[in-house]
Amino acid sequence: MVKNHGLAGIVVDETKISSTKNAHLIYVGYPIEEIAQASFEEVVFLLWYKHLPKQTELVAFRQDLVNKMVLPAETIRLLLYIAKEPQHPMSILRTTTSLLGTTNDVEHDEPPKILAKMLTAIAAIIRIRDNEPLMEIDPDLGVVENFLLMMTGKKPSKRLAKMFSTVMILHADHEFNASTFTARVAASTLTDYYSCLTAAVCALKGPLHGGANERVFEMLETIQQQQIDPLKYLQDQLKAKRKIMGFGHRIYKDGDPRARILKQIAAELVQTTDNQVYYQLQIKIADYMFARFNLHPNVDYYTALIYHCIGLEKETFTMIFAACRTVGWLAHIMEQRQEGSLIRPSSVYIGPTGRHYLRRVGDHNE
Amino acid sequence: MVKNHGLAGIVVDETKISSTKNAHLIYVGYPIEEIAQASFEEVVFLLWYKHLPKQTELVAFRQDLVNKMVLPAETIRLLLYIAKEPQHPMSILRTTTSLLGTTNDVEHDEPPKILAKMLTAIAAIIRIRDNEPLMEIDPDLGVVENFLLMMTGKKPSKRLAKMFSTVMILHADHEFNASTFTARVAASTLTDYYSCLTAAVCALKGPLHGGANERVFEMLETIQQQQIDPLKYLQDQLKAKRKIMGFGHRIYKDGDPRARILKQIAAELVQTTDNQVYYQLQIKIADYMFARFNLHPNVDYYTALIYHCIGLEKETFTMIFAACRTVGWLAHIMEQRQEGSLIRPSSVYIGPTGRHYLRRVGDHNE
Repeated sequence: MVKNHGLAGIVVDETKISSTKNAHLIYVGYPIEEIAQASFEEVVFLLWYKHLPKQTELVAFRQDLVNKMVLPAETIRLLLYIAKEPQHPMSILRTTTSLLGTTNDVEHDEPPKILAKMLTAIAAIIRIRDNEPLMEIDPDLGVVENFLLMMTGKKPSKRLAKMFSTVMILHADHEFNASTFTARVAASTLTDYYSCLTAAVCALKGPLHGGANERVFEMLETIQQQQIDPLKYLQDQLKAKRKIMGFGHRIYKDGDPRARILKQIAAELVQTTDNQVYYQLQIKIADYMFARFNLHPNVDYYTALIYHCIGLEKETFTMIFAACRTVGWLAHIMEQRQEGSLIRPSSVYIGPTGRHYLRRVGDHNE
Repeated sequence: MVKNHGLAGIVVDETKISSTKNAHLIYVGYPIEEIAQASFEEVVFLLWYKHLPKQTELVAFRQDLVNKMVLPAETIRLLLYIAKEPQHPMSILRTTTSLLGTTNDVEHDEPPKILAKMLTAIAAIIRIRDNEPLMEIDPDLGVVENFLLMMTGKKPSKRLAKMFSTVMILHADHEFNASTFTARVAASTLTDYYSCLTAAVCALKGPLHGGANERVFEMLETIQQQQIDPLKYLQDQLKAKRKIMGFGHRIYKDGDPRARILKQIAAELVQTTDNQVYYQLQIKIADYMFARFNLHPNVDYYTALIYHCIGLEKETFTMIFAACRTVGWLAHIMEQRQEGSLIRPSSVYIGPTGRHYLRRVGDHNE
């Protein structure tokens, strides 16, 4: 047997971006609990450039990002076609991320433009799926407000924008998770930014990674719509050996610090959107999972309800995760590119050996 | 400093697909020198199902693959638009691979169909770039002949098909290389086949990986067109600290076994296509690199010339590599999916610590 299966505990590289050491999440030295109160643009700046911007830098950075939240007409034309297909939004986003890298003049695109285009593309996919007209940016608003505006068609309240900004910050980076690591392996071949991002989206789509938030809400919906007793539902799932989504984390054995903040946001949002019933359900499920397995909610658990409160369909939840995580992906791609050493592990061959090929009579290719 | 930088020498997992132990490449137990003489379909069957097919199984498997080398009309329509963009074919292939996974009824696509569609899509991208009509399969031919037919518009001779089959087999798999590893990391999240393949294409695009064969031919062209003395060219490149592409391999210190076979194929093909001048150039460069650095040609070196002899533009070379490697990617994705354990390594944080965020006055989001 291979030790350290799935590379658990194996150090791949050094990083200056984020750390989960001792189960404390920090972004470039700042505890997540504190930095979650910053503005989204400050955190983007921090994760990319390793220090907080001065006030004038922040204003310029924010305006630059907002100005770049525009897609080429050619991309929109293709998007209108692709996003309507009855496919999972993450498949559409996979194609879209690649497409963002195949219009003219993308060769020199840098992270600010790439992030801005990703956010706008994700908002556009949601609007197209909803058969709603695409929205334009409002240059007087920040990145998060514009992202919400372009997704929902409405200018968000200051309070909603602040809460959503915190959600985006909490999802922005998380060390060498599977999608980030995928992006870094791709980046280690010195492939371009869009290829690295596309690879990350491919990995995030998986149900063991970003796909979890959608499944959390699926569970809440099932229980609610079918009026099942939640504890009975959990027991049946566990009996059938099905995983309860949104719980547990390899690193946070005593609870995910992000989930604690997200729980507060969910608690506030369900009030104004009349979704208390889902929140109560989540509390019951969380209590059961803790009492029985000592498992805590992870980042996906309350996020699912927050996205529902904002008015998003559950199929689009993982795409919002991608929007937030693009910040971290880009930080890691930059770091990996500077390093420039190919990531190329080994394996242990355990198949047959000593076989010999005898040429066949009547081979079609002979 | 991190030990085992780039995961060099770190065992990620067990595999039953291929091995490079002691610098001997084997596919499921067969030495590459022997199995390179099999038919392409036999090797696909071997790498996926871990034994050679019986004659009747082989006939059925080949026919099934060929029958599946057809794209949905909807994919062709999009491809006609996308492939014409003045982008690198690998960017187009990245989008195309994702698109193959977003038409109807792809959810249950299995490796035979996925491989067949990839080959046809790659041939189609080449035809569209060449402004040539798309070709249809000839059900009486094998996979390699059909692939060549659809790429070049001509039914290949038996000899050419046999040589190209060997080239495809030699590129079909190579343990945990960067693109295969990218596919496995993505697969470890239980994301779908097309996402894993797209991620692999993203990594293969990098110049430190699949992008090398294109650069080899670029070098040959430069030397030939500008009538530079090859040794002077090499010395100038080395002086400018530029890498000479197509040489050296982490694993094969005494020469890549695939390059030896590819050299023979190149030597034969240059005769019939009047490309001897490039071959002579390659021999001169290889002699110099060996004499001066003890470096041997790798898999990309003679492959570049082989693809040129077949009539392919150098920008499409890495895409042909992708066509061949799709076989191995699919084998590894299947193996990783069976395993189902998330690949999630660690990192060492070396950035600042103990920072504290002070809330700013006048924050745009407050």
